[in-house]
Amino acid sequence: MIEEDDWVLIYFDRRRRYTIKVKKSKIFHTDKGVIYLDSLIGKNYGSRLSTNIGCNFVLAKPSFLDLLETFSRRTQIIYLKDASLIIALASIGSGSIVVEGGTGSGFLTAFLANFVKPEGRVYTYDTNRYFQKIAEKNIASINLSKYVFFKNKDITKGIDEEDVDAVILDIPNPWDVVKHAYNALKNGGVFICFLPTINQIEKTVIELENLPFIDINTYETFLRYYKVSRGATRPMAPMIAHTGFIISAKKP
Amino acid sequence: MIEEDDWVLIYFDRRRRYTIKVKKSKIFHTDKGVIYLDSLIGKNYGSRLSTNIGCNFVLAKPSFLDLLETFSRRTQIIYLKDASLIIALASIGSGSIVVEGGTGSGFLTAFLANFVKPEGRVYTYDTNRYFQKIAEKNIASINLSKYVFFKNKDITKGIDEEDVDAVILDIPNPWDVVKHAYNALKNGGVFICFLPTINQIEKTVIELENLPFIDINTYETFLRYYKVSRGATRPMAPMIAHTGFIISAKKP
Amino acid sequence: MIEEDDWVLIYFDRRRRYTIKVKKSKIFHTDKGVIYLDSLIGKNYGSRLSTNIGCNFVLAKPSFLDLLETFSRRTQIIYLKDASLIIALASIGSGSIVVEGGTGSGFLTAFLANFVKPEGRVYTYDTNRYFQKIAEKNIASINLSKYVFFKNKDITKGIDEEDVDAVILDIPNPWDVVKHAYNALKNGGVFICFLPTINQIEKTVIELENLPFIDINTYETFLRYYKVSRGATRPMAPMIAHTGFIISAKKP
Amino acid sequence: MIEEDDWVLIYFDRRRRYTIKVKKSKIFHTDKGVIYLDSLIGKNYGSRLSTNIGCNFVLAKPSFLDLLETFSRRTQIIYLKDASLIIALASIGSGSIVVEGGTGSGFLTAFLANFVKPEGRVYTYDTNRYFQKIAEKNIASINLSKYVFFKNKDITKGIDEEDVDAVILDIPNPWDVVKHAYNALKNGGVFICFLPTINQIEKTVIELENLPFIDINTYETFLRYYKVSRGATRPMAPMIAHTGFIISAKKP
Repeated sequence: MIEEDDWVLIYFDRRRRYTIKVKKSKIFHTDKGVIYLDSLIGKNYGSRLSTNIGCNFVLAKPSFLDLLETFSRRTQIIYLKDASLIIALASIGSGSIVVEGGTGSGFLTAFLANFVKPEGRVYTYDTNRYFQKIAEKNIASINLSKYVFFKNKDITKGIDEEDVDAVILDIPNPWDVVKHAYNALKNGGVFICFLPTINQIEKTVIELENLPFIDINTYETFLRYYKVSRGATRPMAPMIAHTGFIISAKKP
Repeated sequence: MIEEDDWVLIYFDRRRRYTIKVKKSKIFHTDKGVIYLDSLIGKNYGSRLSTNIGCNFVLAKPSFLDLLETFSRRTQIIYLKDASLIIALASIGSGSIVVEGGTGSGFLTAFLANFVKPEGRVYTYDTNRYFQKIAEKNIASINLSKYVFFKNKDITKGIDEEDVDAVILDIPNPWDVVKHAYNALKNGGVFICFLPTINQIEKTVIELENLPFIDINTYETFLRYYKVSRGATRPMAPMIAHTGFIISAKKP
Repeated sequence: MIEEDDWVLIYFDRRRRYTIKVKKSKIFHTDKGVIYLDSLIGKNYGSRLSTNIGCNFVLAKPSFLDLLETFSRRTQIIYLKDASLIIALASIGSGSIVVEGGTGSGFLTAFLANFVKPEGRVYTYDTNRYFQKIAEKNIASINLSKYVFFKNKDITKGIDEEDVDAVILDIPNPWDVVKHAYNALKNGGVFICFLPTINQIEKTVIELENLPFIDINTYETFLRYYKVSRGATRPMAPMIAHTGFIISAKKP
Repeated sequence: MIEEDDWVLIYFDRRRRYTIKVKKSKIFHTDKGVIYLDSLIGKNYGSRLSTNIGCNFVLAKPSFLDLLETFSRRTQIIYLKDASLIIALASIGSGSIVVEGGTGSGFLTAFLANFVKPEGRVYTYDTNRYFQKIAEKNIASINLSKYVFFKNKDITKGIDEEDVDAVILDIPNPWDVVKHAYNALKNGGVFICFLPTINQIEKTVIELENLPFIDINTYETFLRYYKVSRGATRPMAPMIAHTGFIISAKKP
């Protein structure tokens, strides 16, 4: 049963899906009409309700992913293919100690924290205090704060942590962190970076090859949606054909 | 310092990388020569050694992923893009309760267990007792057994668990499990299946649409490798262009 | 030197490129200002001119492709990868006799005519007289009419021509033409169809396999744009990830 | 009816397809048995015959594409997607005058010649006299010699022709030809090059931008095969994921 301050997913269709926190006396506006949040309290997840103009929606319990998407209006799902592959390539699991360079909106930070908890930790570096505060608030809102340490520091100047399982960089100049990462990683630990241009890749890989890293690989991933219906199944036409490249390397 | 029974990664190059357990008096054969495993004991990870014919290799500490690859001679990394996206789409994290249909080699089972531990659990169904025994041994070898329950049962006949976070299917006829999955999932829980043909997709999606599932999406992912070198960076030519399609759906 | 009734390409940038016919006293409106077409007469191709509000553009000689794009406001270039592969798979060249099912806007018809001329011919079938008239006008406007025969007929009812080099279909039900195509083709002639859904593919291939066709193949093509600039080269993000599938088959 | 010196396509299946010239008393060896070419004479295209060990094959009339594939043992079809897009982007058609840099095996030369004939011409430059002789022989074997002029010259030193419709380069350093191409092209003429690495792309585009070229675009194409069968249709797994990048640019 839904209570005040619960998160709910208001689901009309694939494109109209909103994850919000239930607050008394608040009104939520959609292009399908208005929803009085008072009216959600006491309902069960899975109920079908309608807006003031009679459009139906489903009241769903949000998944962790739905909560993550509240961090930014950008459709983060596009980067999910990259974020998830990064986790896997970095051999992250429950208990991992991870250093992140570039907190950003905290999307990847929270994604990491949800995997490493309860014993693991994420140390996230960013020089921009303003954005890091927003990320901090985002992560608090989904109860992951105790697994994350926010560091308002320039990661290209050095990494404080030692014996970490993975260093994950989403900054424009990862080559400046390669040496620090090598020192911070434990044996078998993994260096990862995510970069938009090919020139950045080349510069980073050259730097990695100057140190005893092994298993240096560069990847690009694609995600294609399908429109599935009886007798008329086809790939969907619009696609984001480039998010970024992923480099991974291992300290032996 | 490496001791007997430790796992090590013997790394020559991208294609010649072997994760093995160190055993006294054992010999490991490669096309670059022979390695006496006795000689590894007492060495540090990161050491450079050579085979009997003088080929150098690095003695690395294997990551979780390297351990996973011991499950099967097939290069599992190709499916990593799918396995990792499945984890993300299913909103799995530390503590999740997951039902898996189709244990197979235990690759995905172990991948899941490493994320859900220490509080979460994986319940994996397979009718083939022989293969499930192998998977069980595989998972024991990397110390994940206590997070996994092996069930020698036909998942199309029903799911015993309730209120689970995710049902993940790698079987040829997931449409026969859709109803059981709906009942087993908690609100906000996610149904996932992985399928090779488009006809299977269509059949499964139609079945999902007959129940109150929301957020029904079908995806295909691609992974491209790059050959990065100063002044000569290019995508690699050989590629596995099809592993399978992923369907995800949510119980509201 | 440009004269009245010449085609010109008014080029501002990648997205603002307009192929028009020069007409005295006419005005052409763009979001970069107004162009008095009188002012183009007597200029040389390659000249740089400016609009009434001072925006520069280049006055270029249109290529055949630029002329083709006048047929429709949709960016036909997206289908160029398919149209060109179709030509190649069908072994079309100067002198080929081609039957086309589905005239549409005449884009593919003109594309074919430009290759088969001066001795080859395109016989194009469509039941929609209205659209075929537009295609006829389009093709006349670029002087290819003498290579094209417009037939206001249903190609699923039969093909009048014999010993043709290729039958190319862009209709929703190509399976209904497979037998007629087989009869119309010469030995070594090629059947091609272009289809949006996978279900249509399956139905057509099954039909082709019922006849002595060989070399039955199904393809899908992708085109990715790159943004190239010094030190910041990357693939472009937006992409049309699906236009259609191509089936080719050969009469032995 | 097949006569001596005719080309035939001996077709077993998708992978076993051989285009050969019928010669009396000759024997053709396949892994499905031996074929006495004498036995083909007098047969009709489309006949089903068998080898000495009873394996059936179809005697098909080769298409132009099948003839092209005799130029090299490499499966040229992989490059077909690129060759055909090049033709289209270059607005080549019957009558076009084309300069080609890099004759290679003559595959692209012949492909071009088949489209520009009977009035058009291909001028192909290569410094390697040995390989150019092979290409010359290849092109003679399919009767396209009168449309091709072989020039044993270094195209980076200059282009003799003027007012050409297209300059198409398959050489490692196209940036050295950009200026010559600009001078050789007519207004509206198109510059094309095909390159394997991203660094080459960047260097060429920068050079093109130094001249008044417009419509400078860089593309990459992909071709995916499908395995189509009733109820089990899927993309094929193996794929060549990189052949090269295509740059096109237009002289206004």
